Amino acid sequence: MENDNKTKNETTFRNGEVPRDAYKAWLRYAPLNPDQAEEYAPWCGTVVAAFSGHAPLLATACEELRDGIGSMLGRRPQESRSSDSERFLLVGTLDSAELKGLMDEADMEAVGDEGYVLRTVEQPERRFIAIAGKTDKGALYGAFHFLRLLQTGQRIRDLRVVENPAGKLRMIDHWDNMDGSIERGYAGRSVFFHHGAFLGNWNRIRDYARMMAAVGLNAISINNVNVNETATRLIAPELLPSVAKVADVFREYGVRLFLSINFASPIELGGLTTADPLDPQVREWWAERATDVYRHIPDFGGFLVKADSEFRPGPFTYGRDHADGANMLAEALQPYDGVVIWRCFVYDCLQDWRDRSTDRARAAYDHFRPLDGKFRENVILQIKNGPVDFQVREPVSPLFGGMPLTNQVLELQITQEYTGQQRHLCYLVPQWKEAIDFDTYALGEGSTVAGVATGALTDRPLGGFAGIANIGDEPSWTGHILAQANYYGFGRLAWSPTLTSEQITDEWVRITFGNDPAVVETISRMLLDSWHIYENYTSPLGIGWMVNPSHHYGPNVDGYEYSKWGTYHFADNQGIGVNRTVSTGTGYAGQYHDVPAARYESVESCPDELLLFFHHVPYTHVLKSGKTVIQHIYDSHFEGFEQAEGLAEAWRGLEGKVDGDRYASVLSRLQQQSKHAAEWRDVINTYFYRKSGISDAHNRTIY
Amino acid sequence: MENDNKTKNETTFRNGEVPRDAYKAWLRYAPLNPDQAEEYAPWCGTVVAAFSGHAPLLATACEELRDGIGSMLGRRPQESRSSDSERFLLVGTLDSAELKGLMDEADMEAVGDEGYVLRTVEQPERRFIAIAGKTDKGALYGAFHFLRLLQTGQRIRDLRVVENPAGKLRMIDHWDNMDGSIERGYAGRSVFFHHGAFLGNWNRIRDYARMMAAVGLNAISINNVNVNETATRLIAPELLPSVAKVADVFREYGVRLFLSINFASPIELGGLTTADPLDPQVREWWAERATDVYRHIPDFGGFLVKADSEFRPGPFTYGRDHADGANMLAEALQPYDGVVIWRCFVYDCLQDWRDRSTDRARAAYDHFRPLDGKFRENVILQIKNGPVDFQVREPVSPLFGGMPLTNQVLELQITQEYTGQQRHLCYLVPQWKEAIDFDTYALGEGSTVAGVATGALTDRPLGGFAGIANIGDEPSWTGHILAQANYYGFGRLAWSPTLTSEQITDEWVRITFGNDPAVVETISRMLLDSWHIYENYTSPLGIGWMVNPSHHYGPNVDGYEYSKWGTYHFADNQGIGVNRTVSTGTGYAGQYHDVPAARYESVESCPDELLLFFHHVPYTHVLKSGKTVIQHIYDSHFEGFEQAEGLAEAWRGLEGKVDGDRYASVLSRLQQQSKHAAEWRDVINTYFYRKSGISDAHNRTIY
Repeated sequence: MENDNKTKNETTFRNGEVPRDAYKAWLRYAPLNPDQAEEYAPWCGTVVAAFSGHAPLLATACEELRDGIGSMLGRRPQESRSSDSERFLLVGTLDSAELKGLMDEADMEAVGDEGYVLRTVEQPERRFIAIAGKTDKGALYGAFHFLRLLQTGQRIRDLRVVENPAGKLRMIDHWDNMDGSIERGYAGRSVFFHHGAFLGNWNRIRDYARMMAAVGLNAISINNVNVNETATRLIAPELLPSVAKVADVFREYGVRLFLSINFASPIELGGLTTADPLDPQVREWWAERATDVYRHIPDFGGFLVKADSEFRPGPFTYGRDHADGANMLAEALQPYDGVVIWRCFVYDCLQDWRDRSTDRARAAYDHFRPLDGKFRENVILQIKNGPVDFQVREPVSPLFGGMPLTNQVLELQITQEYTGQQRHLCYLVPQWKEAIDFDTYALGEGSTVAGVATGALTDRPLGGFAGIANIGDEPSWTGHILAQANYYGFGRLAWSPTLTSEQITDEWVRITFGNDPAVVETISRMLLDSWHIYENYTSPLGIGWMVNPSHHYGPNVDGYEYSKWGTYHFADNQGIGVNRTVSTGTGYAGQYHDVPAARYESVESCPDELLLFFHHVPYTHVLKSGKTVIQHIYDSHFEGFEQAEGLAEAWRGLEGKVDGDRYASVLSRLQQQSKHAAEWRDVINTYFYRKSGISDAHNRTIY
Repeated sequence: MENDNKTKNETTFRNGEVPRDAYKAWLRYAPLNPDQAEEYAPWCGTVVAAFSGHAPLLATACEELRDGIGSMLGRRPQESRSSDSERFLLVGTLDSAELKGLMDEADMEAVGDEGYVLRTVEQPERRFIAIAGKTDKGALYGAFHFLRLLQTGQRIRDLRVVENPAGKLRMIDHWDNMDGSIERGYAGRSVFFHHGAFLGNWNRIRDYARMMAAVGLNAISINNVNVNETATRLIAPELLPSVAKVADVFREYGVRLFLSINFASPIELGGLTTADPLDPQVREWWAERATDVYRHIPDFGGFLVKADSEFRPGPFTYGRDHADGANMLAEALQPYDGVVIWRCFVYDCLQDWRDRSTDRARAAYDHFRPLDGKFRENVILQIKNGPVDFQVREPVSPLFGGMPLTNQVLELQITQEYTGQQRHLCYLVPQWKEAIDFDTYALGEGSTVAGVATGALTDRPLGGFAGIANIGDEPSWTGHILAQANYYGFGRLAWSPTLTSEQITDEWVRITFGNDPAVVETISRMLLDSWHIYENYTSPLGIGWMVNPSHHYGPNVDGYEYSKWGTYHFADNQGIGVNRTVSTGTGYAGQYHDVPAARYESVESCPDELLLFFHHVPYTHVLKSGKTVIQHIYDSHFEGFEQAEGLAEAWRGLEGKVDGDRYASVLSRLQQQSKHAAEWRDVINTYFYRKSGISDAHNRTIY
């Protein structure tokens, strides 16, 4: 029996010191302790593949099982087509000869195209664990599920799991530019591009595809939604062969490739004089491009589009609307089962700060709501979780539940643009859970965002989740090693939005750092607390912003206050906040359905954490917490800093329990965070003390 | 007689549309009106050169006279070595046979090395105008003076002028990088460099040298004081031949070339392990470099040095002081008559905004005052006019008058970094005049900055004026055509600091736009008012800053308030200002001599315009103007905007009186200025209204 411990994790790094564990992320497959190994070993000596017809991903599944198990148990399972062992793993498709009859008809129906079952079968004649998908792709997901069970020390003797993904589209958006830079990237340069061309580090891309598949992700867009000159050419004949090579790698792991496109391509690439979506020549041009793309990439996912947004071209130029633009592209992709993902991040970014009647928060709903029902079936609108832009705290976008006749995808930002840029620990799964669980009341109580985004609520054919990647070419992929949890968590939520933050966290920590209870408890606590900690020492009570313009790092209370970006707090010497009520404000609160609309409209029922997003109140306003707004600001900032120090403190308790490289790397980030949290605390407290003239009730130092 | 109207103004521009008049700047030599022409013509038919020995600049002088007169009078003077005309111009050196005896001994003594006389001589046997220098360089300056008289319509029948420059060093500092960018440049790219090499547009450099000589400037440093990797090599063998070519061009016009050097050159260039100024190897290395530089450029001016300032290397690294650093370089240059110009812009740029005891304004004096008397005779300290950094309003640096045993140069910023970046009209001559005329009381009343900077007050061997260039490769040289006046005015003040703003302005306007009284009156008024207008709508009462970080354009009241740069206003809901008194503040006011120290120390005697620089006062504090501080802020900002609109209005009155190209170009800038002045007005007023809660007494719109 082999025991070569071969893994696919080989790659080339720019310097010699590779923190291998950091690179392996959730594919570490660290050796299990002897008790666990002894329990699992009897089942894991042989992997038997069972399929009928073409099932290329089954080979991937078997390979992953053999590699992962080999690494964890110290023995690489044999591969076999027959099942003569005493106990074995049977990996395959439900329609295969070996697996037919495993489940009855009713059970079979519960397994969707990407779904799978894990089942321990103890029959007189044979004992095996079935890892079976309706398709080979389902089996691959099942294999990763099984590996996860081993990594986290679960029982496998009586498995009876049926899993289907909640979101059809579980997608990662890269904002990578072809020069190798990454917009809002904090983990190095692009893993795809450099110097205007493809980087060609196929090993690394394959590892990345494995990481995606392991958390159930099935789609990726590799280039920035702000499509510049070079990237416009990705759909041109000269670059498509390279794009196809990338697609080939992702395909091995069940991930479909998308491209962000430039709406003005017919002009910039095609030499036409217009990009008018209703122009027959334009339509023809796109149809031809689509045909060519599919000639190279038969399972190409489709186009991701940022149009008429932040100076990007779009249908408005031609007096057309977003539906005209999206449908034109959708028509071109339709013959090939491609989809158009059209972003709703549309607002006036040349606003006048003096004009209090224009409200950026309203913009997406005002633009798109009237178009409900006008989009083709293969168009999906991609909507950020909140109405503004990935702030540490925002209400949910009212477009969720506001367009029942339109496919939607929930866009989340894994990369920590406004949440510490991977220099601060800010685990976003709890934030995302709040958005996902939010009840829109679109069809009465229980109309959660999860239901809307997956399409389940209104029976839409398409839907799902899109996350902006926090991935770069640093050895750890994410810069801050603990930021891997955000990527992992995104994938897990996209598959199963009903998982709790605690479940996902526990799982990730065990897989990444092992099953030592002290380690699991400490890191889980750190992760789960970190979003609130970050919120405590940054922008208070839902008001957002207060960051340095452009790069968005570090405190600057008035940074966007007199800008054209529509992001204001209106703090004066009496109070702070934006009046977005229907009665006396911008009316934004009225974009929600009845129950949330009423909740936000009234200062009494509006939750503390969103108070300043919806209301302008005096500093002396008493919150539900019993504190005044100003005292809340002071308290949360003093507390937030102490909590940030506590994170570093807690981590120090793990010295010796986490390998030296990862320990040192994380500690250094946490120390930076703690120092920078003091800067946030002091700038915010001083700003509001100087402005309000109200002293801290506890006489702490405010400069 | 020739009439070829040939000029040296030919150059190549990147686009076809050359606003020729803008390019010619103060070398336009526009045709004079017939009356004037008739008056001057009889004298100007022949130019006779008179010299003994080597006098290469006399040829330049004659050429300039012939070109300029040819252009103005429509007839190019003949050149002649003999004086057989009825009337003629006699250009030469006072020791020439033709000019000997022109003046008596006493008069002769009054003419310094760069000085000259202009004298109308009506003798029975001959009538001529003598343009005579002690040296050929003096004669060149005299020639430009004479041309200026014609351009501005002065009488020449009874000339009796003796002129000497007040400042020995009349220098321009370019902050040009070798990649072609210009630090704080607002008029295009460098005229010297591009892509890490010399641009080689010799015609343009020659025209620039002519412009310099025409206003009496005699020195130039061509590379940024922040000397990066490439520019470090300017003193290396491979680049010196190119540097020498530039020096050759400037030499034709009496301008000596300097280079900014990198203090760490011995390491970065020489491969030594140290740049310690007391290390013998380092001293030897610099001596060798100096020898090599002078081998290529025999009249090389010397080194300009920014050391231990804003992250630049310097002697501090080795536990040495500025005197050690400067003297080491001075020693290397001494054999060749070279000088070291050592900048005093030294402060802690990693300050903590929470620390109110550290005061950046104090830094230069604290660093350099103790070193008085320790610098070699060929070291000059270059000191910015104010203690902070070229703000619209600052007190004078107390180093002027604080170091009687040290050569000093007054550094002024011609490029409008903080004063509108050549998008706003801000004529700085009145600001500079205030600095130059400031009485330091170093040796009792009458100890002006002019006296200190020129060295006259304490009989220093060296001194003068340095201006940071506002020059780039735009057709107009300065972007905003009216910004040419700042360059011109700097040159004129460096020559003659006793000139009034009005004199300089009148002269420049006539030369640049002609002698139409309406034009002269309007543009002069615009220029003379513009600094106060800019001050009105920007940072009030001497507090400074309130600009966007990094690029320094546009309003941002808290832009630097929580930064590490040491530039704060400390505005809270009660008041604003920095307490720099000796009694209760940072003690900065005590760095001045008795009279100004007492004036600034007391809130009663401190002038309004500097009040917030020296004192923290409540918004309700009543100024000498009778207004409260807050009402002053509102009033000056409303007024400043209206005045800015008035500038555009005034300019519109000149339509048809100024050529179309220049009219349109200036109008467009003034319109931008007016629009942007409204932004300043509203941001500043809103900021202080929100902060103070005090309403405008006149109920004007504050957002």
